[in-house]
Amino acid sequence: MSSSTVKNLTFEMRPPPPKAHLHKTLPDSAFPKGFLLSGTHVGIKKSKSAEDLGLILTTSPAERTSAAAVFTQNSFAAAPVRVSANVLAARSGRGVRGVVVNSGCANAVTGQKGEEDAWAMVRAAGEVGNAAVASTTSSSPAGDNDEANMLVMSTGVIGVRLPIDKILSGIQALPSSLGSSPAHWDSVARAFLTTDTFPKLRARTFAVTHADGTQREYRLAGMSKGAGMIHPRMGASVPTATGLHATLLSAIMTDVHVAPKALQSALNYACARSFNAISVDGDMSTNDTVVVLASGAADALEIDEKDNESFIQFRDALTDVAKELAQLVVRDGEGATKFVTVTVKGTKTYDDAHTIASRISTSALVKTALYGEDANWGRILASLGSLQELSAPIDPSRVSVSFIPAQQQNGTAPSDSPKPLLLLHNGEPQPLDEAHASSLLSQTDIEILLDIGLGEESAQYWTCDFSYEYVRINGDYRS
Amino acid sequence: MSSSTVKNLTFEMRPPPPKAHLHKTLPDSAFPKGFLLSGTHVGIKKSKSAEDLGLILTTSPAERTSAAAVFTQNSFAAAPVRVSANVLAARSGRGVRGVVVNSGCANAVTGQKGEEDAWAMVRAAGEVGNAAVASTTSSSPAGDNDEANMLVMSTGVIGVRLPIDKILSGIQALPSSLGSSPAHWDSVARAFLTTDTFPKLRARTFAVTHADGTQREYRLAGMSKGAGMIHPRMGASVPTATGLHATLLSAIMTDVHVAPKALQSALNYACARSFNAISVDGDMSTNDTVVVLASGAADALEIDEKDNESFIQFRDALTDVAKELAQLVVRDGEGATKFVTVTVKGTKTYDDAHTIASRISTSALVKTALYGEDANWGRILASLGSLQELSAPIDPSRVSVSFIPAQQQNGTAPSDSPKPLLLLHNGEPQPLDEAHASSLLSQTDIEILLDIGLGEESAQYWTCDFSYEYVRINGDYRS
Repeated sequence: MSSSTVKNLTFEMRPPPPKAHLHKTLPDSAFPKGFLLSGTHVGIKKSKSAEDLGLILTTSPAERTSAAAVFTQNSFAAAPVRVSANVLAARSGRGVRGVVVNSGCANAVTGQKGEEDAWAMVRAAGEVGNAAVASTTSSSPAGDNDEANMLVMSTGVIGVRLPIDKILSGIQALPSSLGSSPAHWDSVARAFLTTDTFPKLRARTFAVTHADGTQREYRLAGMSKGAGMIHPRMGASVPTATGLHATLLSAIMTDVHVAPKALQSALNYACARSFNAISVDGDMSTNDTVVVLASGAADALEIDEKDNESFIQFRDALTDVAKELAQLVVRDGEGATKFVTVTVKGTKTYDDAHTIASRISTSALVKTALYGEDANWGRILASLGSLQELSAPIDPSRVSVSFIPAQQQNGTAPSDSPKPLLLLHNGEPQPLDEAHASSLLSQTDIEILLDIGLGEESAQYWTCDFSYEYVRINGDYRS
Repeated sequence: MSSSTVKNLTFEMRPPPPKAHLHKTLPDSAFPKGFLLSGTHVGIKKSKSAEDLGLILTTSPAERTSAAAVFTQNSFAAAPVRVSANVLAARSGRGVRGVVVNSGCANAVTGQKGEEDAWAMVRAAGEVGNAAVASTTSSSPAGDNDEANMLVMSTGVIGVRLPIDKILSGIQALPSSLGSSPAHWDSVARAFLTTDTFPKLRARTFAVTHADGTQREYRLAGMSKGAGMIHPRMGASVPTATGLHATLLSAIMTDVHVAPKALQSALNYACARSFNAISVDGDMSTNDTVVVLASGAADALEIDEKDNESFIQFRDALTDVAKELAQLVVRDGEGATKFVTVTVKGTKTYDDAHTIASRISTSALVKTALYGEDANWGRILASLGSLQELSAPIDPSRVSVSFIPAQQQNGTAPSDSPKPLLLLHNGEPQPLDEAHASSLLSQTDIEILLDIGLGEESAQYWTCDFSYEYVRINGDYRS
């Protein structure tokens, strides 16, 4: 910004609330078996204490592992996205040894050289992975020695080459620091971060009832990153394109033994209800990637789609973790002071409900009103009315809109919590109790409920408000 | 905003530049003949010095007048939009006596009562109009005495009833203050304003060569308003819906004699290249309306589409005025510090070029980077790449992006002006000269040029940056 025109201006504003409590310390027992991890600083990020390179390896035999991923549908998909899709397809989801990730540079719009850099990361990490596996499982060969067995993720600024020498040296130095403690998981979660304010790591155990009647317990742990350029729309394939910016990234690990096709199917289902249902600023990134790695390291029976019960139990557990990781991205949205759930029901199709929820979640006017805690609900309707791509046209006389207090969003409403506030009922505005609206809108968690009145389908979306801090962060991202 | 959580925070920022010089004083001779106008304060807006009710009348015989309009395509089209469309259709564009406008309240999502209020405004204004015309043209009857001969426009907050008694009394008191001086035109332009910082009034003379070979001079004058909720997509018909907020409004007057069908055709063409090609915040309003009234009061031959030359001359003059009025809305965009032209060329279809320009013009990340004067061009490509609704898919290896200095946008480049800055050429990033980028981005007028490399079509869009001031204005609009 040219300094001659810059002034210090003072605003009365609500700063983003503290978010450090969202960084959780998890017990050793919550993490899946069969993984080694390390996060380190190699000098991509300026701050020396900030991890900017991470490696996640499974030490299981190749034939027990499976991997699945969803990638950005952006025409300018970045080099690491295209390379990872290539590795995954070439291996049909079997024997993927792990994921190497860097933050600070997105390796996007970097041309042919950028693609070579992404491949170099894959090979260097593959070498480290193969050696680590050979040393930890000397009695049985852990898999093939092909080095093109790693997925790669990058996030950061666009249009700039990776400092590839630093990264390759960093990867070669990783073996000494690999481990499986909660601190190792935490350090990799930190290696994903850019403008994020806390590492996003979650883990849980879940039970599966197998076809033979036995019930077994497994583990799922994952990390996500993202704060800006968040409006993912990911799919299992990548547009054929050459390469852009930063981004939703997530890696989820589990110790179930699951067929690659079933894993991809479970991820597609989970992603639609989690990462593809969040928006910070409406801008889709070139690097969005979610990877799931299954080590099969638990004493596990294989899960596949044919055994419906065990598959659905796994898929739902994966969806819950994905939803939690996706929602953490929104809670850490750039400048966010509010966590907003947009629930749309009463549409003829799921796609209509998703489209409406997405549109409202990206309206600058709705989001600034939420920041201002202003019950300007007319903006919600203007945004809804602007949609012309719905399968069934909106009938304004059937539309109802309410604000729902956060305490009722998980079904537990303490007796002193505010009541829901009906703003519009079948197209008729309701008298607005400003004190009631104010008590709802002053909460950090807000839910907007729209009933379209045309059918039985519904969808949910999660978004945040639009604050001064968002403008500050993005007005000068590169410096 | 709950006061307990509010703090005074100070930002280093560039405030919106002064815009008062955009309010022009125009000579008497620039205004079209055959119109009477008045703007007044009736108490809808809080400030007593602020006009909030305006009336524009043509005093010409009904058979010499014509009117055309385009309206928002929002499903929640406001009552005044639906009533105006009804009046215009019922009269087939002939004998429309004028336009009554109020600001401060949008009469949107106001149910059946809101529709009755809009009709009451039409009838009261029609009565005043008929009486004024009868008194000014006593020798020849000026048209029918039907009072449903006025169009109506409202802008302001949504979901609140109009203070209809104040408005009707105000309309009845208008006759004493009607006039045709530049001050009268200016006072009506002020009656359109909401968060606008200056009245947007422009006028020009233009020449038409008629089929008989004579060349005659006519006049066009118009006013527009708009600062937020600006992303119009207007059409000649209204969605069948019941009614919502604030808004792009414009009224353009001319003294040509033109057939209603030709006038509508010229307006459709002009609107696509002006009002439907601007965005402040990506939010489409429920009240967007552009009206053109032709008085036929000049000693004029009738223009119709059959006489191609005269029609095109008129259509192009109308387009130029519409473009100027639309661009003023962007210059006065809420919190705007930059006026940004997005030019897209090299697409297979005009629609593709328009869709791309519209998408880039609404990216929060592109707009905050422009506010920060940060050459973060990767965000432009991420935004481009997110489009999946194009007729021909983007080929990243054919895409080029440049910043063009404002001085070259009208073809006159002073020798000391900065050169264009090529950022991406056929998909390859170019070395970025930060000093050059900084000198271009520190200007108030910036042009982003995208060459898609697939065809011969092109489109232009105008937008502004996204500043702290936008958040301040919209964080608490209602209070």
